[in-house]
Amino acid sequence: MNPDVVTALGLVAATLTTISFLPQVLRTLRTRDTSSISVGMYAAFVTGVGLWLVYGLLTDDMPIIVANAITFVLSGTVFVLKLRYG
Amino acid sequence: MNPDVVTALGLVAATLTTISFLPQVLRTLRTRDTSSISVGMYAAFVTGVGLWLVYGLLTDDMPIIVANAITFVLSGTVFVLKLRYG
Repeated sequence: MNPDVVTALGLVAATLTTISFLPQVLRTLRTRDTSSISVGMYAAFVTGVGLWLVYGLLTDDMPIIVANAITFVLSGTVFVLKLRYG
Repeated sequence: MNPDVVTALGLVAATLTTISFLPQVLRTLRTRDTSSISVGMYAAFVTGVGLWLVYGLLTDDMPIIVANAITFVLSGTVFVLKLRYG
């Protein structure tokens, strides 16, 4: 397959998984309801994304840094809101 | 920094983000409550992870294949439960 198509596929995949937490952030800010969200999921996910960010910084890998910095802020916001609203 | 430490950091990060959805799956199966979960988040995330899986298959990258196959099943389960329970 054309390498440009494969690279484009990876970029679309990275963009989707990175921005996916935005609708959850907006919904949670609006409703202040986090009752059905798992605190364990966000504890593990935010920690993992934070370690991905450190990994990207140590390996000087810009796509990993950018994607995980955005995801860290978005999923971290959901985690903080979950801790606040329960 | 020791390359083995950096690689280990990446593996821990990948493991955490991959298994993080398991507590959400278990909670949702137990409570059948998805009221505060964003359907848009899971639509985007599951699609993105699915594209990561295709990307891994096309580039023959085993870590990307394994991590995203597991994440696809777990986050896909949350998405299906969200569509069922609303």
